[in-house]
Amino acid sequence: MIEALIFDVFGTVVDWRTGVAREVEAFFADSEHRVDSIAFADSWRAKYQPSMEQIRSGRRGYTVLDVLHRENLDATLAELGLDDAVDNEGRTRLNRAWEKLPPWPDAVSGLEALHGRYLLAPCSNGSIAMMARLARSAGLPWDAIVGADIAHDYKPQAAVYRASAAALGLAPEAVMMVAAHNFDLAAAREAGLKTAFVSRPEEYGDGPVGKPDLAPSDDWEAVVPDFRALARQMGAGG
Amino acid sequence: MIEALIFDVFGTVVDWRTGVAREVEAFFADSEHRVDSIAFADSWRAKYQPSMEQIRSGRRGYTVLDVLHRENLDATLAELGLDDAVDNEGRTRLNRAWEKLPPWPDAVSGLEALHGRYLLAPCSNGSIAMMARLARSAGLPWDAIVGADIAHDYKPQAAVYRASAAALGLAPEAVMMVAAHNFDLAAAREAGLKTAFVSRPEEYGDGPVGKPDLAPSDDWEAVVPDFRALARQMGAGG
Repeated sequence: MIEALIFDVFGTVVDWRTGVAREVEAFFADSEHRVDSIAFADSWRAKYQPSMEQIRSGRRGYTVLDVLHRENLDATLAELGLDDAVDNEGRTRLNRAWEKLPPWPDAVSGLEALHGRYLLAPCSNGSIAMMARLARSAGLPWDAIVGADIAHDYKPQAAVYRASAAALGLAPEAVMMVAAHNFDLAAAREAGLKTAFVSRPEEYGDGPVGKPDLAPSDDWEAVVPDFRALARQMGAGG
Repeated sequence: MIEALIFDVFGTVVDWRTGVAREVEAFFADSEHRVDSIAFADSWRAKYQPSMEQIRSGRRGYTVLDVLHRENLDATLAELGLDDAVDNEGRTRLNRAWEKLPPWPDAVSGLEALHGRYLLAPCSNGSIAMMARLARSAGLPWDAIVGADIAHDYKPQAAVYRASAAALGLAPEAVMMVAAHNFDLAAAREAGLKTAFVSRPEEYGDGPVGKPDLAPSDDWEAVVPDFRALARQMGAGG
């Protein structure tokens, strides 16, 4: 019996690309700098997996994603020739773009329906601090925040999924991982969790950072087009 | 500038004694056993601090409060001659009494007012699992869950307050600890946090487990009769 659903967040619950671009655009709107905000978002996000790989591989101790994002922001500004354009205070402000990302249109109503029947929590690589502020901004009805910051390691390491189920007081098989990414679900299943695939074909747009998983790669317990369909399939209205 | 308020829970947000007694009474209502449910609650709670002291002292590794509560429940049942009266399934069910405690009458409306302006989280010795379920049952508007389960140690160890502020992405001085217990506030202040004292004179009733702190022992940043007064004092309406 599934008692809790835990969610990948960037790409699955919220639209990071549009959201980061919007914040970047607003930030530079009154400046002399012409910035391609979508290219900025893609460049920033391209450094995401490599920065976490340092920690997953053990070459670097656990460091919250807020700090990795800031380092990657600094590198992005340098790459785009904007090193002198943004001071420290501005960088701190820009780094908060990740706390203001917009939810996909079905996300909040789907989560609210699921919340009537299940414990809900993000299982993201984002920190507790980042997830708490994002939840306020986007209106996400989480009961708790689990994920990387609980396990002090990054997905798709098995420890993150196992620690997340344990933090909710549940056996892995009583928890369903929801994600738009097959690799995330494969790792969750390997750790003993149930799995649900949600299509998010627009996540990467036409950018260079990645391609969406348009179809499930395996026989996940649920395969749905959005969170409302997930709520219906899980017997939680919607 | 204070950005987050974190709360002691048992005794400060919820009424553990009445709540546990109510669950115990309901549990034994249809049985042949005559149980003094208030004495049961007091006996169970009397084992709370000693069980955590094993972990604070380093004699035992971090063990979630759900497990300590279960061990203390087993000891309580033995003490009261009820060892044969409750099977394993029943003990599991009784142990969940701590997830169903009633909030003090001002708690939910006060938290809702504070939530308009501050990040809110429990900083309890209860686990993430326990706090998540209690929040659903009592309607507590937390943004995150911090406390013992983040730090893998128990209050009043300084690490718990420091790890809680860090998990919210804040310096200790940007976080206010709210409690009905002076020892909790003294430890939080020592760790660098701001402090607020709330009177909860009914916490222990006339039982043997403890006496309420009827007055502040120090010049805490706020001293209030309830959470609504705290919200008003913190500029959050109420």
